[in-house]
Amino acid sequence: VNLDSLLEEKIKEFIGCGDGCPSTVTKTLSCTSIKASGRLASCPPGMAVTGCACGYGCGSWDIQNGNTCHCQCSVMDWATARCCQLA
Amino acid sequence: VNLDSLLEEKIKEFIGCGDGCPSTVTKTLSCTSIKASGRLASCPPGMAVTGCACGYGCGSWDIQNGNTCHCQCSVMDWATARCCQLA
Amino acid sequence: VNLDSLLEEKIKEFIGCGDGCPSTVTKTLSCTSIKASGRLASCPPGMAVTGCACGYGCGSWDIQNGNTCHCQCSVMDWATARCCQLA
Repeated sequence: VNLDSLLEEKIKEFIGCGDGCPSTVTKTLSCTSIKASGRLASCPPGMAVTGCACGYGCGSWDIQNGNTCHCQCSVMDWATARCCQLA
Repeated sequence: VNLDSLLEEKIKEFIGCGDGCPSTVTKTLSCTSIKASGRLASCPPGMAVTGCACGYGCGSWDIQNGNTCHCQCSVMDWATARCCQLA
Repeated sequence: VNLDSLLEEKIKEFIGCGDGCPSTVTKTLSCTSIKASGRLASCPPGMAVTGCACGYGCGSWDIQNGNTCHCQCSVMDWATARCCQLA
């Protein structure tokens, strides 16, 4: 029996992760803003929308397709998505 | 000495978790929207409110009882809570 | 060979963390609101801004310096930052 490989196998088994594990454990919440002209702004893949801001003082928005801010007021010049991930 | 049980005990001791551990390590941020009529919208247990949207273009809101969006503008028809969790 | 120290060394190597590791594994998303008078409200160090609310029904805001909500409407009496972290 090779103790080293036995240990590695056992540890990965108990933690339930493969190669992606080590970097995952120390993650913190990291957020950024994505601004676009018009009434839609999308978060990049891997990030979640936590809130939206809109032009013209508008606070009425909804999320479309899971990752896109949609500002609802009739006239709109810009939209911003607040996007967060564990990183 | 049974090497397997010694390993399991040691690994759990160092990681500081019990049965809930394996699934925790690979978590990512996941968000959803909860919309309600009126001026209040609440996130379900286990989810945190990261932001709110309100009808009538209103961007003035506060969080009540830790998990409920409260839209403050005088006239209000709907409220939406943006709810996130590690999942 | 001391099996205990060999195990500790191996486990820390695979998990990729030191003393900070145990408490990290069981983290959940935790959020709070920071309200201030004027047009600026900041999250404390270690927390991320996930969204903002503003007085006068205003829904136009942006994030300054990574952790500060800036309400953009011309007249403004209060700003609130929604601040989240893994805790």
